[in-house]
Amino acid sequence: MNSNLDFVRIFDTTLRDGEQCPGAAMSENEKIEIALQLAKMKVDVIEAGFPVSSPVQFQAVQRISREVEGPIIAALARAVRPDLEAAAKAIIPAQKKRIHTFIASSPIHMKFKLGKEPSEVLKMAVEAVKICRDHVEDVEFSPEDATRSEPEFLRELCEAVIEAGATTINIPDTVGYTTPYEYGELFKFLIQNVKDSHKAIFSAHCHNDLGLATSNSLAAVLNGARQVECTVNGIGERAGNTAMEEVVMALRTRKDKFGIQTNIATEEIAKASYLVKTITGMVVQANKAIVGANAFAHESGIHQDGVLKNRETYEIMTPESVGVQSNRMVLGRHSGRAGFKDRIVRLGFNPHAEELEAAYQRFLEIADRKKEIFDEDIRALFADESRKSSNDRFALESFHVTTGTKSTPTASIRLSIEGQLKEESATGDGPVDSIFKAIQKATISDAELIKLVISPVTEGQDALAEASVTLEKHGERVVGKGSSTDIIEACSQAYISALNRFSIS
Amino acid sequence: MNSNLDFVRIFDTTLRDGEQCPGAAMSENEKIEIALQLAKMKVDVIEAGFPVSSPVQFQAVQRISREVEGPIIAALARAVRPDLEAAAKAIIPAQKKRIHTFIASSPIHMKFKLGKEPSEVLKMAVEAVKICRDHVEDVEFSPEDATRSEPEFLRELCEAVIEAGATTINIPDTVGYTTPYEYGELFKFLIQNVKDSHKAIFSAHCHNDLGLATSNSLAAVLNGARQVECTVNGIGERAGNTAMEEVVMALRTRKDKFGIQTNIATEEIAKASYLVKTITGMVVQANKAIVGANAFAHESGIHQDGVLKNRETYEIMTPESVGVQSNRMVLGRHSGRAGFKDRIVRLGFNPHAEELEAAYQRFLEIADRKKEIFDEDIRALFADESRKSSNDRFALESFHVTTGTKSTPTASIRLSIEGQLKEESATGDGPVDSIFKAIQKATISDAELIKLVISPVTEGQDALAEASVTLEKHGERVVGKGSSTDIIEACSQAYISALNRFSIS
Repeated sequence: MNSNLDFVRIFDTTLRDGEQCPGAAMSENEKIEIALQLAKMKVDVIEAGFPVSSPVQFQAVQRISREVEGPIIAALARAVRPDLEAAAKAIIPAQKKRIHTFIASSPIHMKFKLGKEPSEVLKMAVEAVKICRDHVEDVEFSPEDATRSEPEFLRELCEAVIEAGATTINIPDTVGYTTPYEYGELFKFLIQNVKDSHKAIFSAHCHNDLGLATSNSLAAVLNGARQVECTVNGIGERAGNTAMEEVVMALRTRKDKFGIQTNIATEEIAKASYLVKTITGMVVQANKAIVGANAFAHESGIHQDGVLKNRETYEIMTPESVGVQSNRMVLGRHSGRAGFKDRIVRLGFNPHAEELEAAYQRFLEIADRKKEIFDEDIRALFADESRKSSNDRFALESFHVTTGTKSTPTASIRLSIEGQLKEESATGDGPVDSIFKAIQKATISDAELIKLVISPVTEGQDALAEASVTLEKHGERVVGKGSSTDIIEACSQAYISALNRFSIS
Repeated sequence: MNSNLDFVRIFDTTLRDGEQCPGAAMSENEKIEIALQLAKMKVDVIEAGFPVSSPVQFQAVQRISREVEGPIIAALARAVRPDLEAAAKAIIPAQKKRIHTFIASSPIHMKFKLGKEPSEVLKMAVEAVKICRDHVEDVEFSPEDATRSEPEFLRELCEAVIEAGATTINIPDTVGYTTPYEYGELFKFLIQNVKDSHKAIFSAHCHNDLGLATSNSLAAVLNGARQVECTVNGIGERAGNTAMEEVVMALRTRKDKFGIQTNIATEEIAKASYLVKTITGMVVQANKAIVGANAFAHESGIHQDGVLKNRETYEIMTPESVGVQSNRMVLGRHSGRAGFKDRIVRLGFNPHAEELEAAYQRFLEIADRKKEIFDEDIRALFADESRKSSNDRFALESFHVTTGTKSTPTASIRLSIEGQLKEESATGDGPVDSIFKAIQKATISDAELIKLVISPVTEGQDALAEASVTLEKHGERVVGKGSSTDIIEACSQAYISALNRFSIS
């Protein structure tokens, strides 16, 4: 047995395939924040981006390569020289680096997308891998749309790229079409029939169009795959990628069946999920496996009774194993600076003194309005503060809004713009529209609102509301967040936080 | 081959296991609305509720039995006489009726929950099935927590209940613990070894705790199961039940592999998903398979280019096949009453003249504020109107709200209460809190706010916001909805709509 086969590598593509889904664009700082959390949860590989696609992408991959230690940093590249050179250059600062190159291998993709013959595709793939090997030792190759490719051509292609120096062979189910048995058989076939298959790690990459991504990935593992590509919360194009938390917890909970583990620090899952949710504004439904708000909730009398008698009657894993505190501890005004700091640290944040103080002041404001402050509230407000920076161009000084059935929704605001106070007012279709219009007037912004998501952080009438605003200007997308017991204030903060994220003004 | 084996029955438990999840409580009218849609999409069985659990449950099952034609109506009952009698009585009016009885069969459940020996459990199960058969011919039996039961005891139990007259044997993975291979093997073992197994239909019932519910159900089908129990959007306790749309569309999209179909009218899936989402307030995440907002969206340049060249490069099923209109048609003020009515009918609504007129007036109001009105907007506003009734106790006449950094959030409202006007005002922690407090004062309500969900119906700054409010009073939970371009108005409407749903005042 090859020692490479002892565990399943987790290749996280939240920052690449995940970011590709509508509305999930992230700023460079946000990518760093997520990458640091991925490193903390001990993923084996972070796919940091697609450097050739834009200067912003290039720079983010480069910064992650420089600042994030531990995991291998991978960059994506089509099988053409400019892509490969850009990828190679972006990851230079990384301690451990990988280039991931791909080209489509299915008849439909080769014919309609590439307009190329199989023999040309094979040649391009081999060329690409060789270029990669000029730069790095760790090269991953993906035949795109592998599950709709001719198995014999796939075998030939895998053989050729392994000979050219590929060290990981990824078999993507690009369109989310395969089923567990079929996908497992494909791995078995390739590992048995590709010459020198033991020289590469085989990898699964699934999409969830039919709801089968997790079980397809596990079927691949049962048939020899030793890397799974996935994203936090399963974000990604269409129905998303394989959800990391599901694969990791299925392998762990059913180790009796799978007999193979990952390196993931599972108790970091809840925090990673929260970060990705708040940064992308991609809502996680309550009934999402592992990370949904209800995942560990028992509603019916029969179940509650069972759980009280013996936890295992209805619980196959503990909330604590994924970092969810089952005994929610509540803070209030009386908790003081020390209690607040202690909680912040235990929640996994590591603030500078200044950040901590700003978050504490905000905590006191909220404690005046809200009887009980939960961990989720603290996470939200701390995330708000940690996203603010003294370099921010815009800050909300104050606002006033009126609305009603018999009055036109009207907002007035006072902003600080590069240190100068400016006041504006506007009317709109609703209070949120009116305050956004006032902000737009004051900042002379032509950014377009792409998305506004409002989610309650905790429950009850005095719940903190968290708003996430996505703006677009000249092709650049940014996301801003805000939270408050006042929904209008949360929206305004989020809008201004987004404006502060544009790299161009 | 038994002719019973020609297709997979879809047993929908949205109204029973689905409703059991935190926050998904539905009113009787809402249950009827969903049941009618389930009948329209041709599910084979509707599990309408658990009659013994409360008078409200009993009445809902009875009304569904009376008013919903087509599917078999099933009622749940523990294996004890009062449960069974209540179930039998509730479904009397149904044309096709089933009692579904269950008792736990795993060592941990028998010992800690029931405190009974296996032999006692077996005796109770047989007794229960016999009582069912005194009332109906169609009897389903479930050994709860089957996947953690001793296979040999399970075999014995199945044999005994088939002999006693059970016609469907359901094998629940109550805690979401099983894996596809293991679950498939369990069906193979039981169907091969249970005496007279051909006299019953075997059924799969999975939970999604490890993200495997869909593939576990499909593994059961591959091994002889001919009924799948599931819910719309996969709602249900913890991580939810198997999502109906995933099983149905996987069987359909991969009929080459499965070779067996359901009766489901797949083009009704989008409407069913929308109804369940808005009625329960259970958000569907954008990357949810089949029914998520992004399920058919292509973001990346590479993918868009491919789709333009040939749709099948990245699309394995068409949006139309699940009832999603890919060419969104937009209405505006100019569309007129006829255009509006035509759209309403094509969206699957069938309004009375009065309902139509009320919805049209509301449409004109929104058209004044919003440039483009999408199908989703029309669905939302029509759903609002169709939920109003002339019997409603409370109606919002007008409101006024002010908030801001330097002013205390303040709301004043004018309500019509059983025809009498009443005005109130209140301050709060935010504008929503203040208007809810004003409504509470005016209606002298001691209902507790359990949940407030705000979701954008469409995109853009002038988007319609939809609010869903869950209230609880004396153990009764109700959900109300409202939509408006003004977020505060949407919240107020939802609160009042919820108040109108309490059966007790």
